[in-house]
Formats: sequence, C-alpha cells, structure tokens
Amino acid sequence: MSEARLLVLNAGSSSIKFAVYGMAAESPAWHGQAEGLGGRKPQLLIHDGNGGTPEVRKLQDGSHEQALRCLLEWLDQTVGHQSLRAVGHRVVHGGIRHAEPVHLDSELLDELDDLSGLAPLHQPHNLSAARHLMKLRPELPQIACFDTAFHRSQPWVAQQFALPAEWQERGVLRYGFHGLSYEFIAGELQRIDPALAEGRAVVAHLGNGASLCGIKGGLSQATSMGFTALDGLPMGQRCGALDPGVVLYLIQQQGLSVEAVQDLLYHRSGLLGMSGVSHDMRELLASDEPAAARAVAVFCYRAAREIASLAAALGGLDGLVFTAGIGENCPPVRKAIVDHLDWLGFSLDEDANASNAARIHCADSRPVYVLATDEQAVIARHTRELMATIQD
Amino acid sequence: MSEARLLVLNAGSSSIKFAVYGMAAESPAWHGQAEGLGGRKPQLLIHDGNGGTPEVRKLQDGSHEQALRCLLEWLDQTVGHQSLRAVGHRVVHGGIRHAEPVHLDSELLDELDDLSGLAPLHQPHNLSAARHLMKLRPELPQIACFDTAFHRSQPWVAQQFALPAEWQERGVLRYGFHGLSYEFIAGELQRIDPALAEGRAVVAHLGNGASLCGIKGGLSQATSMGFTALDGLPMGQRCGALDPGVVLYLIQQQGLSVEAVQDLLYHRSGLLGMSGVSHDMRELLASDEPAAARAVAVFCYRAAREIASLAAALGGLDGLVFTAGIGENCPPVRKAIVDHLDWLGFSLDEDANASNAARIHCADSRPVYVLATDEQAVIARHTRELMATIQD
Repeated sequence: MSEARLLVLNAGSSSIKFAVYGMAAESPAWHGQAEGLGGRKPQLLIHDGNGGTPEVRKLQDGSHEQALRCLLEWLDQTVGHQSLRAVGHRVVHGGIRHAEPVHLDSELLDELDDLSGLAPLHQPHNLSAARHLMKLRPELPQIACFDTAFHRSQPWVAQQFALPAEWQERGVLRYGFHGLSYEFIAGELQRIDPALAEGRAVVAHLGNGASLCGIKGGLSQATSMGFTALDGLPMGQRCGALDPGVVLYLIQQQGLSVEAVQDLLYHRSGLLGMSGVSHDMRELLASDEPAAARAVAVFCYRAAREIASLAAALGGLDGLVFTAGIGENCPPVRKAIVDHLDWLGFSLDEDANASNAARIHCADSRPVYVLATDEQAVIARHTRELMATIQD
Repeated sequence: MSEARLLVLNAGSSSIKFAVYGMAAESPAWHGQAEGLGGRKPQLLIHDGNGGTPEVRKLQDGSHEQALRCLLEWLDQTVGHQSLRAVGHRVVHGGIRHAEPVHLDSELLDELDDLSGLAPLHQPHNLSAARHLMKLRPELPQIACFDTAFHRSQPWVAQQFALPAEWQERGVLRYGFHGLSYEFIAGELQRIDPALAEGRAVVAHLGNGASLCGIKGGLSQATSMGFTALDGLPMGQRCGALDPGVVLYLIQQQGLSVEAVQDLLYHRSGLLGMSGVSHDMRELLASDEPAAARAVAVFCYRAAREIASLAAALGGLDGLVFTAGIGENCPPVRKAIVDHLDWLGFSLDEDANASNAARIHCADSRPVYVLATDEQAVIARHTRELMATIQD
C-alpha cells in the first residue's frame, strides 16, 4: 500500500495554493498552485521538494472545480488514489465560536457561509473549494483551520470595540487574522527560545498583508487587526488604522460612493497610496523617490507604536519576532522599527540584521528574531492531529 | 476710565460659554453661559467670582445673535461700554496652516469656513459667533484660538494616514484636538515639575470627549485623536478607534445609511453603547450592572494601550498627567489605567489617588499628576498677547 498523504489547500479568488505532506513529514513532498483562475491562461504548477523546474498542466477552463479535479487526477497518478487520507483547508474566518480546527461537514459549511459577510474576499473561496471536494470525493475527511482561531485566547477586553452590545452580539468584534502564522511562530519560539516562548513576545507578521500579535505563554493576548483585514498597520495597498470619521467624510462631504471608498482603502492606500511608487517594500527601499522613503517611514513608525500598544496588552515586552515577506527579508525596515523601540531595551546587531540571521539583537538587547513562517505546516499538523482523534 | 477687559467665548450649537477677564488676571471676574439656544427656555447665566447664585437673564428668542447681544448689554451695564478691548474665541479647527492664534477678519473667517466640513458639529457655531460680533461691534478686535494648533508641532510622520497623497493634500490628516487643554497643562507642568516639562509626558484629557497627547519638551509629538473627534479613546458616546472596515460593513452588509452610522458612532457608542447604562463615568462607577464595569474596563484598557503607543512616539515616557472631568475626578479610572502601565515604572499612592491630590504616584514611581485644565485661561492669555503685538 502506498504511503498515506495529506493535502493542504489555500483557495483564493484567482488561485488555489496546495501542498502534499506525508503523515509524519514536516515539509511537503510537493507544493504549488492552480493560478490564473477566472483568467485566460489558467494552469496548475507543481513543484517537487527538489527545487527543479515545476511541472505545468494547462487547465481547460478557469473554474475552481476543474482546478481541483485536475489536482486530484495528478495526485491519483502520482501517489495513487488510496493514499490521500485527508484535506486541510485554510479558512480565513471561524467567527467567535471556533478556537480550534474542525472537521468540515455540510452543516458546518453552512454555518461558516454565514461568516462570508465578514470576509467577503476570502471566505466564499475557502468554502467553495471544500464544497467541490465534498462532491468529488465525498469519503475524504476535510478539516478547516481558521486564521482567526489563534486569537480566541485573548481576554474579552482585547476583542471589543466601543460599540453598543447589540452590535457586539451580531459579531462586530476584533477577530484578528494571520493566526496560523502566529501559531507557527509560537511553536518555533518554544524550540529556539523557551524562555521567550513562556514570556511576552510581539510577533510582527509583515507581508503584503501585515499585522502584529502580542503573545504571552504561547497564547494570543491582542493583535493589531480588527474586524476586517483593513485595520492596524498600513499594508501594501490597505490603509491600516484609520479614523472612522474619514470614511464618513469621504462619503458625506466628498461624495464618494461606499464602493469607491472600499476600493480606495483596500487597493489604493497603504504603501502604494503614500508612495505613488509601489505596494512592494523592496521596490520602495530601492527607490530614490522621497515619497517612497516617506511611505517606509510611516510604515515603520506605525509598527513601532502598535508594538508598544501590544506591550501594554501583555504587561511588558520580553522579545520581538519578525516574520513573513518584509519581516524576513527587509533589514532596513527591521532596523527602523527597532530604533523606535530602543527605550524598551531593544537594539540590533547590524551585521546579523543585514544578513537576515535568525538572531539579530545585540548582546545587551532583549531578543529579536527573524523566523520564516509556514502556515501550511500548521494546517498539516492540525489535520494530522484531528484525523488521529477522528480515527480513535 | 474703567478697567480694561477681555471676553472669552466658546460658542456651540445650543450654548455659548463665556468668561470675562481683566487684562492681567489669571481668573475670570465673571463667567457663565447662554444656554438652551434653539430650545424653549433660552437664558443667560452669569456667575461672579464669588461662587454665589448666578444672575439669570431670559433670552427673548433662542438665537445665537440675540444671546450675544444680551451678553454685550450686560457687559456694558456692568463694566462699561469702553472697557471691553478684545474677544478671544475657541475655534475647533485651524486646519494644517494655523499653528498659532490669529486676529480674525472677514477674509480669515471665509478661509476657516472652508474647514467646516472637517468639524461640522462645532466649526460653524464657532465662526458664526465671531460674525455676529463683527456686525454688533465692528471695532472690537477678535482672536481665534484653535483646538488643533498645539498639535502642529508634531513630526509629519505622526500626522499622516496611509492614504494616497492626493487625499493628504486635500486635508485628510491627523489633526488632533483638545489642543488648548494640552497647552494649558504643558504650562502647568513647567511650574510644578520643570524636569518633566522638559522631558516626555503623556497627558490624558479624559472628559466626555477624551484624548491623549504625547508631549516632549512642551511640544506635541502625537495624539490619539485623528481627523475627527471620533478617533482614539472610547468616549462618553463616541466609539474611538474603529476598524474602518466596520463602517463599510454596516453600510454594505447591514444596510445602514451613512447617517445612521454617523449617529451610531457619535451618539450611541462609547461608554453609553457598551454599558447600556450611561455615558457618564460617575454613573458607571456607581452602577452594579456588569456591563457598566465592562465598559469602564474597556475604556481603561484602551487608554493604557494608547499611552504606550504614544510613549513609542516620544521615545520613552517620563511621566503622566490626568486632566478634565474623568481625569480629575475618577480615582478608579486612574488606578486601572496606571495598573496596566506598571511595566513602565508607574504606580499610584492609593490615598493620594483617592483624594484627587495633585501628585498621586508612589515614591518609587515615575511621576503621575492630576491637574485641572483651563482652556479659557489659555484663550485669555493668547488674546492678551496678540493684542499687545497688534497695539505695538
């Protein structure tokens, strides 16, 4: 009998990212994505673990269902029909109820559908992939891992807006996102710095989407993202924290439609909007436009202020971790953020920082780490664990 | 010749507060307000400096113009027509240009009118009082003192939202408010703790409107309020910081009109909304409703997190000042906020705190003060100073 496998899926609007794991492996044997979905050249890209040229399979139409069908066919050919034992999904929103991964059935899918209004850009695609697979392989167990779940350990006070109770009861709360990434980093911290893992750390997940999480003893205590993925830090194209009065002003005084405001705040703000140059931090750092430097400065300033705010939520700060695209690869950004935090006992070793080393703090500084995140590995681990309990 | 006098005005939608100062006096000889304007029982209340029963004059109609006319008549009778030398106005919004008080003429009034869209609840009333007086007493010099002006010393990075440059150029910036109060407190600090006045302080102006200001060497470096008076801390009825995605969600997914959202965020949120009991902190502290205690807890938690964020803007924190209604009179609120900040070296002397003493920190704590604010005194001082330069 062939080796048992898990499939990890992250289904979005125009792509489905996947990874195939053995039942005990920490790294995927294959990974890749169906891309260009809904576009003119949809295709399935498959990388093996050796870093060679990816295998490319053309997709006949750009539908998500066909992409999943093609992925399953390739899996059948490659590892055999019987070897796929479970699928783990990234699902962006688990609402206030789901603090753990869950076994997906059609009843639960309906419940999670009700959360689509809270994450309209992601949730419907996440769930529709599970529905297609339920039809294609009804016998295959599917597990949902939520990007909000890690934050449900937060004290209630951190999850509130100052809105009437009726709106809180209807779900207008600070959910937080990037939870699978924070959970991975919390696990890594146990391995590389058990004292900090027991203590109070802020993890900076700085990618095209960016947020911060205050973690104490491995549990999320507060995070910079709120109800949607728009709040907190400025991002590639998103505005981050914004006076709600600005939204009212743009509609009431400037005559913008609510759709135009949504487009402005989600797609034309953040680093792109401030710089007028790019949403990409690497391009901004390489640019000699003054507006590019200013956009980077605002990003780093807001990150430092949010880190201090999270330190208050933690009752102090013992260490920092940078992760995700910008966090792992942009020394000047880490430098500027940590420079704003010297009063909290942080300073960087410039050589270590310049080389993206794992440990980048000076000898007399509180610890500062650069750690690669791996959300797929967390989904694979949860899927394995939940399969074990289902089979028991 | 009778003693020269200054009139200080704070004109709102339904009231005009006033105070009458001598040219050298720190306290007003009379103060009071025209109240119930636009209502059924408009009247002018006048207190002298002795704390006795106020004089009450009925106003024939509820118009602002008639209230001002009646105030001038009373002044003529009381101090003589010639003795009034200038009027100083609180004007909520000076835009990005006005970092200092200015002599009002009709050209400047037109310029300030253009800012009414940024503060529609206050600016039109502030300016209309000046226009009425210009008609009633064209020879009388009038001075505008702006609630935004003190914050113009902030570094540009603190004044930005992560929006496209075109919106920044059109004035969508973090202006900040309560500047006259912060300016008064900065002056008081020079008197009672010159070292802290030179250092890094956060001033907590906690009233029915509430904000925080980080001050270094007497200059505002950052503040919790942004573009409108809605941002930052939860307030009596206002929401404070809110994911802009919530505003979009309420309109797009819940079908609220933008006016309904405005009403929700300005009038039905904050302490009132969370507690369902009252917007008044004293009533919440006296209540045994669990929701009242929760609302107070959220207020204090958010205040502590914002104070830490401002500490990052200052590069550290040497001391705290509490002022305004809640700041001056609610020991449990100060206690809860400072308890969240013990990691920054703050702790309260419980007896001193309970008695609303001026100095409430423990011997081994960084300084924490309770200081009464006096915006009218700042307006009187600026009016005097500007009159002196005009007469030179």
